[in-house]
Amino acid sequence: MDEILNTINSPRDLKKLSLPEMTQLANEIRQLLVKSVAKCGGHLASNLGVVELSLALHTVFDSPEDKIIWDVGHQAYVHKILTGRREQMSTLRQYGGISGFPKVEESEYDAFNTGHSSTSISAALGMALARDLQGQSNSVVAVIGDGALTAGMAFEALNHAGQEDSDLIVVLNDNEMSISKNVGAMSAYLNRLRTDPSYSRTKEEIESVLNRIPGIGPNLARAAGKFKDTVKYLMVPGIIFEELGFTYIGPVNGHDLAELKAVLSNIKKMKGPILLHTITQKGKGYEPAFQKPDIFHGVGPFDVDTGTQLKKSLKTYTEIFGDFMLNQAQRDNKLVAITAAMTSGTGLSEFSRNFPERFFDVGICEQHAVTLAAGMASSGLRPVVAVYSTFLQRAYDQIVHDVALQKLPVIFAIDRAGLVGEDGPTHHGAFDFSYLRHIPNLIIMAPADENELVDMLHSAFSMEGPVAIRYPRGVGEGVRIKSERQLLEPGQSRLIAEGQDLAIIAVGRGVSIARDVVDLLAGKGVNPLLVDARFVKPLDRRVIAGAAQKYHRLLTIEDNSLAGGFGSAIGEMLVEEGIDAELLHIALPDEFVEHGRVELLFEQLNMNPDSILESIAGKWPELFSAGSRWELLKFGQN
Amino acid sequence: MDEILNTINSPRDLKKLSLPEMTQLANEIRQLLVKSVAKCGGHLASNLGVVELSLALHTVFDSPEDKIIWDVGHQAYVHKILTGRREQMSTLRQYGGISGFPKVEESEYDAFNTGHSSTSISAALGMALARDLQGQSNSVVAVIGDGALTAGMAFEALNHAGQEDSDLIVVLNDNEMSISKNVGAMSAYLNRLRTDPSYSRTKEEIESVLNRIPGIGPNLARAAGKFKDTVKYLMVPGIIFEELGFTYIGPVNGHDLAELKAVLSNIKKMKGPILLHTITQKGKGYEPAFQKPDIFHGVGPFDVDTGTQLKKSLKTYTEIFGDFMLNQAQRDNKLVAITAAMTSGTGLSEFSRNFPERFFDVGICEQHAVTLAAGMASSGLRPVVAVYSTFLQRAYDQIVHDVALQKLPVIFAIDRAGLVGEDGPTHHGAFDFSYLRHIPNLIIMAPADENELVDMLHSAFSMEGPVAIRYPRGVGEGVRIKSERQLLEPGQSRLIAEGQDLAIIAVGRGVSIARDVVDLLAGKGVNPLLVDARFVKPLDRRVIAGAAQKYHRLLTIEDNSLAGGFGSAIGEMLVEEGIDAELLHIALPDEFVEHGRVELLFEQLNMNPDSILESIAGKWPELFSAGSRWELLKFGQN
Repeated sequence: MDEILNTINSPRDLKKLSLPEMTQLANEIRQLLVKSVAKCGGHLASNLGVVELSLALHTVFDSPEDKIIWDVGHQAYVHKILTGRREQMSTLRQYGGISGFPKVEESEYDAFNTGHSSTSISAALGMALARDLQGQSNSVVAVIGDGALTAGMAFEALNHAGQEDSDLIVVLNDNEMSISKNVGAMSAYLNRLRTDPSYSRTKEEIESVLNRIPGIGPNLARAAGKFKDTVKYLMVPGIIFEELGFTYIGPVNGHDLAELKAVLSNIKKMKGPILLHTITQKGKGYEPAFQKPDIFHGVGPFDVDTGTQLKKSLKTYTEIFGDFMLNQAQRDNKLVAITAAMTSGTGLSEFSRNFPERFFDVGICEQHAVTLAAGMASSGLRPVVAVYSTFLQRAYDQIVHDVALQKLPVIFAIDRAGLVGEDGPTHHGAFDFSYLRHIPNLIIMAPADENELVDMLHSAFSMEGPVAIRYPRGVGEGVRIKSERQLLEPGQSRLIAEGQDLAIIAVGRGVSIARDVVDLLAGKGVNPLLVDARFVKPLDRRVIAGAAQKYHRLLTIEDNSLAGGFGSAIGEMLVEEGIDAELLHIALPDEFVEHGRVELLFEQLNMNPDSILESIAGKWPELFSAGSRWELLKFGQN
Repeated sequence: MDEILNTINSPRDLKKLSLPEMTQLANEIRQLLVKSVAKCGGHLASNLGVVELSLALHTVFDSPEDKIIWDVGHQAYVHKILTGRREQMSTLRQYGGISGFPKVEESEYDAFNTGHSSTSISAALGMALARDLQGQSNSVVAVIGDGALTAGMAFEALNHAGQEDSDLIVVLNDNEMSISKNVGAMSAYLNRLRTDPSYSRTKEEIESVLNRIPGIGPNLARAAGKFKDTVKYLMVPGIIFEELGFTYIGPVNGHDLAELKAVLSNIKKMKGPILLHTITQKGKGYEPAFQKPDIFHGVGPFDVDTGTQLKKSLKTYTEIFGDFMLNQAQRDNKLVAITAAMTSGTGLSEFSRNFPERFFDVGICEQHAVTLAAGMASSGLRPVVAVYSTFLQRAYDQIVHDVALQKLPVIFAIDRAGLVGEDGPTHHGAFDFSYLRHIPNLIIMAPADENELVDMLHSAFSMEGPVAIRYPRGVGEGVRIKSERQLLEPGQSRLIAEGQDLAIIAVGRGVSIARDVVDLLAGKGVNPLLVDARFVKPLDRRVIAGAAQKYHRLLTIEDNSLAGGFGSAIGEMLVEEGIDAELLHIALPDEFVEHGRVELLFEQLNMNPDSILESIAGKWPELFSAGSRWELLKFGQN
């Protein structure tokens, strides 16, 4: 077991392996992948699909001199295993362990950090041009999935690379999927390349075919003008890529190690931009993942034998949102739902099955998704864009320019807001309050629990103009779901606890943290007022400014960056109102937060209730009796 | 003169015109365009290029029921003239006058607000899908330039539209230019479509050509499998668009009214997504604009007879930046410059001529530009991304995810920051402090004058990690340019005036406003401290917190949105430092600011020195003697 894998400490060790040895190695790697992800959770299906491709790349190219950029990067586990991190796979995605994505800080073999889709060709082209300018000669390879190829950014990079004369290899890892089945005309085109023999011929084959057809070969030469060249040119498979200036090669079987190695060795010597089209299968080699690649795209810990995942005890916010949409679609026939390749992740699977004509999966195209929604809203529909906080970053301009400027009633259902845990800094939704709050005409909410999410979604439909609702990854608070929905007015906050010593204004996940802080404070004889702000914009000025004036001490709690976030908004508002109060902000720091369990991360960031209690005691020691001050001091020194 | 134009009050009036009348109308429109732009400034060349296209569209389609979406929208003047705004052309881009871009608030004929590039196909597809769902039957037409087609967002929309079965017309207005000459592989492809007869044949022509070549026609039928279909399919011109699911028609001469009307009438009846490729010439009909379409893309007022523009008396920040880059490129051979189709606008024309191998115009692709820079920086180069503030919004995610997360030393030279004036809300750089400030690892500066811009650019090269420098549109302060550059430490502010009554902390253009405020205050016997913060991030904590503690009254001035901006940063910092001071923020309000002269806009927003003086007097009346308080009060009531 693992007898070959145990000898692989760097890509150099691969180069001496025979083909049978490498085939065995592929099996050993697959077993390690399944074992590691079953324990730590993570991306499985995509990694099972690129075992041979990763082996071939690291055999033919000489990393780290040659640069391999893994688009999105969730398929880089095999690469990590082959580049000295085999034994750290047991720490995958755990706090202090190795990241689930390529990370330059982690290894010299990781050429570029990835996590968001479709950046690899741009980064690779930058490296290739830098190499040329500096007179170096290494290869640069971007590995990008067919899903990631739908994003406009990838097209921008292809369009530029096709014009430059730089040597650049793009490996299109075509598995017919994003997370779900891939969509769009480009996907249909790739499907034709895969399945239509006349598309998949090599140039030589086409020429020989032409010559076999009586009359065509010789006659072509006689045709006027450029006609022959045109025919020949147009016969080349992968014409879109060829027209964009790439040499297209493929499709090749991405699980055939011998073929992959041979083709890559040839490509390594070729000039200019090359696109190699490989066909792979997500989940290959582990039956549960092969059968359900969408489920095993990203998974929590599971049982290796059966593939069954640990069942969550509570409903997630995602599920609450999905339930709401199903229900609301029956009430409101103007409702449409838009997702950017996240049907299942955003909770819209049921919706897509029940209301296919009102459901739009546009591929990994957040920019287009938002402006498409703007177009729909301008024509009388009520579009809901369901998207992760970190991915909506890519449509910031479209929210400003296409939605908010025209006050169009688009609803943004922003999942995975705040810290997401094991996926780390590329996936935390740490900035949405900050990148949304300064956008005029936008209403921003964050629910404290499941019922508030429903109330907010419900209320959004009665509001004019655009509305953003952001909620965390994972399970809710476990509150009993009300049967009645409450209609919230813009800005309407909720008083949770009366008190007199200070005012705590929390929002979103900050509210449950605040509740624990209130309990801890009560144990010390301190009784704060607690308000669930619900709205980040507009703020409940009357209540919050009133509390500041009355209590003079104001604590804000949120799971967004301090800079420009919720606490910052309250600070600005108090300045506008001319109210002089002492503020303490609990929020994410001005740094990229690492990966790891959310609870652990909050502790590390001093955002857990105990740490917040200490911060309060440090800021307002007068609130505490001498005895409890001493206790807190002692605690703080631990 | 204008005898036909004067009869056109809505598109309906066009439908009864004969072809010669319409040709005369085209001439009259061109004269009005030249006259209007010569007076008000604006976009000229692009509008001169679409006179016939606009006439044909409004003759064949029935706006406002049929929707016409003008991509970018700077070419919508003809549309405005034809839709009841002929006489308002004299108010073009002036405060209170008509906008230089389509604006739904202005006319029911403006179907969607535009200003940024490449949004039209997404919006149009949204409208088309909304029409289908609501059982309506209007046409939807997006008019997009070949420049705008390079942006990934347009590709995302094509990719989605090609999959949907919705009727949608995309008119590709191909003039071979963005603002400068167009770039990229797609541009080269369009050029082949334009110039290669075998590309530009219609399907029918190709079939007849095939039949004329002896042997091919009959023999094809005998060829095995799908070979014939494949050949036929591959012969279709516009293959990229066809592969993406569009029916490609063209190219057609965009100045031939009869042909345009005939083709559009046919297209109107066709099903599914159609792409009509029209060839136009920017500047057609006005020789100076025809000869120099880049200069006459967007211009200030000019002399109609000669085409000469009013000369600016002072150097612009753009020119200062351009000079710096030329100089720095000689000192530092790692320096490269990247622009997204804004070579001239960002001041890089000279640089591009002198250092072509270190200059990269990537087309209208801000996303790719930023990640390309990240790739280059990761390989040892020092890339400078020169970009307008409002357009950098489109690369927000790439700044966060591809640059800042890896601390890559990319320098962002952000032009057109703050209010830009006549181009209005889609072009103001009102949000850059807010969308950049919360990004970890990023240094943000804004110069108060020309020398500071040079010092900041110079210093950026000695800083680790990414740096953003934002500066306003137009001429500088007119200060004498120093020969020595000063090396600034991160956070290092500059004391401009000593004082004791309050502290004014200003940044960027806010500093010159603050100087005037200081003069006004001095006239009232009030002496403030004035600090030029220079850095928005990191702040000069020692100086600013010190001033807050010492003077207790702190006024901040910036030309960015209040929300999340510079004043907000100071507020957050004072909370962190636990300093209790009275704050007053002068900043842009939480609204989209209209178009008009910058000085006029500042007045309307109460951001001119007189208004700021009033705000100070309102906030801190104790600073003023009874007499001057009364004066200010009186002034405020005017």
